[in-house]
Amino acid sequence: MPLSNRTQEFERRLAQTAAEIEALLDQLLAPAPFEGETARPARLIEAMRYACLGGGKRLRPFLVAETAALFDVPRVQALMAGAALECVHCYSLIHDDLPAMDDDDLRRGRPTLHKAFDQATAILAGDALLTIAFDFLARPQTHPDPAVRVALTAALARAAGIGGMAGGQMLDLAAEGRFGAETLGEAEVRILQAMKTGALLRFACLAGAILGGADETAHAALVRYGEALGEAFQIADDLLDVEGDPAQIGKSTGKDAAAGKATLVAVLGVAGARRRLQQLVARAEAALAPFGDLAAVLRDAARFVAERRT
Amino acid sequence: MPLSNRTQEFERRLAQTAAEIEALLDQLLAPAPFEGETARPARLIEAMRYACLGGGKRLRPFLVAETAALFDVPRVQALMAGAALECVHCYSLIHDDLPAMDDDDLRRGRPTLHKAFDQATAILAGDALLTIAFDFLARPQTHPDPAVRVALTAALARAAGIGGMAGGQMLDLAAEGRFGAETLGEAEVRILQAMKTGALLRFACLAGAILGGADETAHAALVRYGEALGEAFQIADDLLDVEGDPAQIGKSTGKDAAAGKATLVAVLGVAGARRRLQQLVARAEAALAPFGDLAAVLRDAARFVAERRT
Repeated sequence: MPLSNRTQEFERRLAQTAAEIEALLDQLLAPAPFEGETARPARLIEAMRYACLGGGKRLRPFLVAETAALFDVPRVQALMAGAALECVHCYSLIHDDLPAMDDDDLRRGRPTLHKAFDQATAILAGDALLTIAFDFLARPQTHPDPAVRVALTAALARAAGIGGMAGGQMLDLAAEGRFGAETLGEAEVRILQAMKTGALLRFACLAGAILGGADETAHAALVRYGEALGEAFQIADDLLDVEGDPAQIGKSTGKDAAAGKATLVAVLGVAGARRRLQQLVARAEAALAPFGDLAAVLRDAARFVAERRT
Repeated sequence: MPLSNRTQEFERRLAQTAAEIEALLDQLLAPAPFEGETARPARLIEAMRYACLGGGKRLRPFLVAETAALFDVPRVQALMAGAALECVHCYSLIHDDLPAMDDDDLRRGRPTLHKAFDQATAILAGDALLTIAFDFLARPQTHPDPAVRVALTAALARAAGIGGMAGGQMLDLAAEGRFGAETLGEAEVRILQAMKTGALLRFACLAGAILGGADETAHAALVRYGEALGEAFQIADDLLDVEGDPAQIGKSTGKDAAAGKATLVAVLGVAGARRRLQQLVARAEAALAPFGDLAAVLRDAARFVAERRT
């Protein structure tokens, strides 16, 4: 297939999964209480829906769906795990945007949650989205075997918690110099970013392996792929902050440098970061070798992540 | 046994479990990373330890331990589930104390976490404690059968999320009139409190039943007990806010009335609330009938909760 057709085909698949995730989240985050719940207070579910519905590329659920597809996992299972992961991602954006954290007013081209609602509601909506993600993973629709559900739960908790995303956000705040002067070298920035953004993208690929009952080789291959993709994603994000158009990407730019954020672009320079990005795409593609042509979409995903403009 | 001896014996058991939970949390929240974690950033783990260690009656883990003991559940399993629950409880205190929420400076006689550290660290420490609770439940030490671990996960997520504790906090903020004037009647206050504080206490008792593989009768009995205990706990708390000594209970008093909080004491008056409290203790005791003498400690717990002065 010529490259332009492949790009079109990739974007069609990405949009298709995004639409399915949107529909599933719309249903899972319905205003009516679910079994075992007393009530879903209107203001809180509205805030959760505001933050989770109506936008986003849904890259993380897409990676769950495409890695799970390597093992012919039923689509509904991959979508449930993807919806759980997307809730964790959305919670992290809500809390990161708070005035006490990164203090952002704009997200996906709309006011951030604490601007559209208020800070207390934003804190609670984040808390409730994080919590409901584990509810989703525990449901039988996610997988009939409880051992698989519990493996997903453990992996998501490990990826999102102090040893992953939350810990990475802590390191990021420290790197700004909030708690005393700090200067991070390349290795430290890579650890920070592997935790802050890498951990959830790595989990997305790991989730496909867990759902699919992957053997050790396939499991390790998808973890390598997810780790390379995660670092590539962050470098592309940091390059966008330096070079991107705020109107197009739907959030403010130039904030990293202003806040003294630790990025690989700051450490390696723009040209060095671009070279690193190409290495990572090659590494991600190489990791997929065991899957042959089956993994064509995942190869496209690595290039998409590296080349995205929004 | 004479009442004073029984009270002493009860307090000895409560303190014993508290010491075991303290030791377990000290180990689970160690500064060194756990398997699968890249790192535990020092400031974040210190904040989590500040909030979780060194205090508290550990009533929720105690209820897990004592309900699990009815079914001869190995103690380590009950303590693991209790430690997970305590992390969720501590996260909720951290986030509730934030300036955007209840804005409290004092907790257990010490500065609240955002006072001792800062708001961003407090938000992240709460997030990380909520997340690690699900990590703990997913570990094999909690129960060898993944189906039991996943049942605990689902029940805790349901108790802590929008349909439980987080939803209850949202209703509580709304009842203060933050989002427009609201006046709650007795039924609405009871729903609010069943969600805000009742849900975790109910879960504590449910956890014992889940760990113990309780049959339907025993399961339903412990849920009834947990629900009565939860409401009794909240009324006792509200009475303390009206009548307690701040130096003794380690937090400010009189805040509920000042903030226009919806409490049953406000709705029923002090005498009415005291009568309701006695009914609830009787209901909690009656629920334990199927367990006979085995449940003596749980009967004592109901009285302890109703009569506590701190």
